[in-house]
Amino acid sequence: MQSNKELQLLVEKAKRFSKDGKVADYIPALGKEDGNDLAITIYKTDNSYFHAGNFEKKFTLQSISKVLSLALVLMDRGEDYVFQKVGMEPTGDPFNSIAKLETLKPSKPLNPMINAGALAVTNMIKGKDLTEKWERLIQFVRALANDQQITYNEEVARSEFETAHLNRALCFFMKQNNIIEGDVESLIDLYTKQCAIEMNCYDLARIGAVFALNGFDPDSGERLIPEHIVRICKTFMVTCGMYNASGEFAIKVGVPAKSGVSGGIFAVVPNRYGIGIFGPALDEKGNSIAGLKLLEMLANEFEFSIF
Amino acid sequence: MQSNKELQLLVEKAKRFSKDGKVADYIPALGKEDGNDLAITIYKTDNSYFHAGNFEKKFTLQSISKVLSLALVLMDRGEDYVFQKVGMEPTGDPFNSIAKLETLKPSKPLNPMINAGALAVTNMIKGKDLTEKWERLIQFVRALANDQQITYNEEVARSEFETAHLNRALCFFMKQNNIIEGDVESLIDLYTKQCAIEMNCYDLARIGAVFALNGFDPDSGERLIPEHIVRICKTFMVTCGMYNASGEFAIKVGVPAKSGVSGGIFAVVPNRYGIGIFGPALDEKGNSIAGLKLLEMLANEFEFSIF
Amino acid sequence: MQSNKELQLLVEKAKRFSKDGKVADYIPALGKEDGNDLAITIYKTDNSYFHAGNFEKKFTLQSISKVLSLALVLMDRGEDYVFQKVGMEPTGDPFNSIAKLETLKPSKPLNPMINAGALAVTNMIKGKDLTEKWERLIQFVRALANDQQITYNEEVARSEFETAHLNRALCFFMKQNNIIEGDVESLIDLYTKQCAIEMNCYDLARIGAVFALNGFDPDSGERLIPEHIVRICKTFMVTCGMYNASGEFAIKVGVPAKSGVSGGIFAVVPNRYGIGIFGPALDEKGNSIAGLKLLEMLANEFEFSIF
Amino acid sequence: MQSNKELQLLVEKAKRFSKDGKVADYIPALGKEDGNDLAITIYKTDNSYFHAGNFEKKFTLQSISKVLSLALVLMDRGEDYVFQKVGMEPTGDPFNSIAKLETLKPSKPLNPMINAGALAVTNMIKGKDLTEKWERLIQFVRALANDQQITYNEEVARSEFETAHLNRALCFFMKQNNIIEGDVESLIDLYTKQCAIEMNCYDLARIGAVFALNGFDPDSGERLIPEHIVRICKTFMVTCGMYNASGEFAIKVGVPAKSGVSGGIFAVVPNRYGIGIFGPALDEKGNSIAGLKLLEMLANEFEFSIF
Repeated sequence: MQSNKELQLLVEKAKRFSKDGKVADYIPALGKEDGNDLAITIYKTDNSYFHAGNFEKKFTLQSISKVLSLALVLMDRGEDYVFQKVGMEPTGDPFNSIAKLETLKPSKPLNPMINAGALAVTNMIKGKDLTEKWERLIQFVRALANDQQITYNEEVARSEFETAHLNRALCFFMKQNNIIEGDVESLIDLYTKQCAIEMNCYDLARIGAVFALNGFDPDSGERLIPEHIVRICKTFMVTCGMYNASGEFAIKVGVPAKSGVSGGIFAVVPNRYGIGIFGPALDEKGNSIAGLKLLEMLANEFEFSIF
Repeated sequence: MQSNKELQLLVEKAKRFSKDGKVADYIPALGKEDGNDLAITIYKTDNSYFHAGNFEKKFTLQSISKVLSLALVLMDRGEDYVFQKVGMEPTGDPFNSIAKLETLKPSKPLNPMINAGALAVTNMIKGKDLTEKWERLIQFVRALANDQQITYNEEVARSEFETAHLNRALCFFMKQNNIIEGDVESLIDLYTKQCAIEMNCYDLARIGAVFALNGFDPDSGERLIPEHIVRICKTFMVTCGMYNASGEFAIKVGVPAKSGVSGGIFAVVPNRYGIGIFGPALDEKGNSIAGLKLLEMLANEFEFSIF
Repeated sequence: MQSNKELQLLVEKAKRFSKDGKVADYIPALGKEDGNDLAITIYKTDNSYFHAGNFEKKFTLQSISKVLSLALVLMDRGEDYVFQKVGMEPTGDPFNSIAKLETLKPSKPLNPMINAGALAVTNMIKGKDLTEKWERLIQFVRALANDQQITYNEEVARSEFETAHLNRALCFFMKQNNIIEGDVESLIDLYTKQCAIEMNCYDLARIGAVFALNGFDPDSGERLIPEHIVRICKTFMVTCGMYNASGEFAIKVGVPAKSGVSGGIFAVVPNRYGIGIFGPALDEKGNSIAGLKLLEMLANEFEFSIF
Repeated sequence: MQSNKELQLLVEKAKRFSKDGKVADYIPALGKEDGNDLAITIYKTDNSYFHAGNFEKKFTLQSISKVLSLALVLMDRGEDYVFQKVGMEPTGDPFNSIAKLETLKPSKPLNPMINAGALAVTNMIKGKDLTEKWERLIQFVRALANDQQITYNEEVARSEFETAHLNRALCFFMKQNNIIEGDVESLIDLYTKQCAIEMNCYDLARIGAVFALNGFDPDSGERLIPEHIVRICKTFMVTCGMYNASGEFAIKVGVPAKSGVSGGIFAVVPNRYGIGIFGPALDEKGNSIAGLKLLEMLANEFEFSIF
């Protein structure tokens, strides 16, 4: 890629697919977004970057945050501990499904990218209380983005807290089966804050660059995440990152990526790029419809696939 | 049947099966029971009765209470309202299963005898607050048993409240799908009290007599429950009363009955008897193992089956 | 009931509901029926009868035949043998579902009224080969109807044989799990013939009279089916006879009944009536929509319910 | 890696895990294998290779063959056609599960690595009859292995044909839903031959080298498979290749691989190696237990992971 203009052309092409998607509206704050928006930052590991669209517009991470909490918890607790509570297998079920918790023996969320697994992960963040856990998480995110201003969107967090009954059902089911412990309301509080962490495409791409560099800060060269933990995260992003369209995404794009219902996509082209995308019109599986198209175009043109 | 002695002989025979069962121990208060116990009262609609075993020993109703709350709620709200929230179909799934709430569209508990359905029913008891709802329920039960002393076992209620995470999961799932409304913790509080209502075989058999008389009080002749509501309750007891052994019970015994994990069985021989049984050793499906045998013997000898 | 005219009035009222139903059309031969048809015979145990509509029109039994093959197989093999291969429990799943065969351990059809269970039952009909098995079944049906002319509709049987892939899937799954043995194609051949047995409302009502008399022939007084086997059949008709609307039917009508996708309903009012109904417009669960309404009206007016 | 001796040491270490596994014995021919065997060939893309253990011992491909038939069918029919019949998503269900075919709408096997999907793929091999289809498949396999002697094990194929009732159930279910067409017995015949294709570690590793070279023959340099089809196959191997341990394998080893119940593993280290392993003692998920350990050791030592 040579220029922002080149990227802008692809964005224009991808944008046309937005009309077939639908902005998430289960809470009012999300429903206000313009379905026609599409923005991207591509952050190169040499600290240069390209962008197109309104790349400074903030959006909430939603499910994208699952990758970041997983990285923190793996650092906090180690693989052995974490994978006693949550599995490593992709699933053909929707991200918010409860059925497998009932049918699988022992009961354990299949992976950390579905809601049940992500709740179990957030439950393992170290800290003496909710405040400390939150503080540790947000500091970790700020360090990855190299931006101390990052925080969460209170309106979104509050709305989601009030309506997160399905997540409460998942939590109580897991509490029954000793997958999670402690107070469910506190966990939901922490989890909805986590999902409401807000940033723009640039920030997200910058975090992607850390992953592209296997854990190193692209500016300081400091190690922020151990390499084997980055590898685990990237692997989950490939096998389960794009809801139950992950398999198709692996074939069509072929890079570690994680999407959120806000319309964000976090993608990593190993050793090359961190990518942050925002396109709030979603396809029926919950992925940014224009964002997916844009990644497909980029993957084809610049040979992103790791396969 | 001619005498208590005749009944006592059957009890002795049935009791031998207790050794193949197991007392419920998910809360300590239940686990303390003697698995070898077996008691029964048969209350005839002419107000005479037979009994055998320690028929005055109190036990908690547990799932048996589902029939009584259903009767109250049908009186409170009418059939149309109630069956918008809960279905009428038996299920091959365990009583505490959540899977069908996810797979069925619209999401609705299949019937009022499984936990999800019973929680939805208790949620419909009329009353301005928890206290009034509870008061109305316990007064209804006292009237049916003609015993103003009946109340709930606080230790059992507290224990179940603390451990009822699966029921909380069911509630939140139903709240998400607009099957139940209001505060989940209050509902769990009311429901665990309901399950912890305590009485003996005599009381339970006396309530059975009301059902055997299609809703009339056997002493006063007063109508306590409308006939069509008694019929609905008895129908559910046949199709779904004995957990996922209801079909087998219908074939082998063939009368409306409802069991609880405390080891109680509430049975109705239409126009003839109300029956209360207590035998805490359970089979693998959660029914009193000796109680079932006893009912089978009685059904064969005295031709109970309605089929 | 006093006269055919009285019955005819109810039929006219019930018929109006036909317009909300749909004639089964998965094979052409069924799709040719007139959705507006509604016919009934009520056969009293004193050998008198009422009828209304075109009660001499023939239709195929389809799932109604499951009750008759079950009775024969229970006579052939005894309860213990039969219930090793097929369960006694109602299910919330559709009649043709395969999922529970996979999830339940041991794998065994939940009851003889769903397709898997009925196939397992037909597989147990005694006979040295297909011809002898068929001969024994059709002779049994002829004896019950007291009509030696009864046979099967070849066009329907052939069509169903050619398209019965789901039933083949069920059979092979059960063969894998040792529920059925022998050649699957022969079983499908026998089963599709069984489903294609053809008779009219009068014949069906006459068979119902045998059930209403607990197994006795209403003309000769001869015992055709042992009483305990009739009881088992009637019990299954109550708990699982009307597909996954059985629970609702038990509440609204309350008698043993079995429906078929041809639009037939076979109902038994114990000690009183055998009933045959034909109304090919089906509701979404596969039951005759006007036939159901007609039974509801009759049940209310003449107090059919056994509950 | 420098020498066969180095590899032999790792094999000795991995072999110790064989004792925790179990040789497949659902057909006698498989059960005869020695659970203690472990053999490997690593074929470098420069046509040199290392081996250890009895690498010339033949074994049947079983599920490994699913990758090869997929490659052929993608060449025969194109992606669009193939992915109308079979999905791209990993599943948390076992490889032989039928449940998702029932619950997903439209009914379609989730991916080509589970049995349902592989049967649908084999059903798409071009050819005017069974013989021609088989001939085209085996010639393709021979070309990939550069070995004209490769054929199938008749005893294994016959045994599997006789017992493949679960696969027949899957086929008839898919025939009902228009996923497959034509005669099921012919398809089962072709599929069991495909699974019974027999080769040794060297052959398998050589095929792996073709995949490692993105479709080029390592000897002749001729293109045997288009690059984008190799990429699709490798992607499925990562997301679904190791049964429902694929997610864990992706994390612990991180290369495209496919296992079979014979104990074979086919692995590809892109641009570097094709690997063939034979270790018939299986873990509970059906993967070679020592083979997995061996790949883990190699992956750690020689940095195989693509993540």
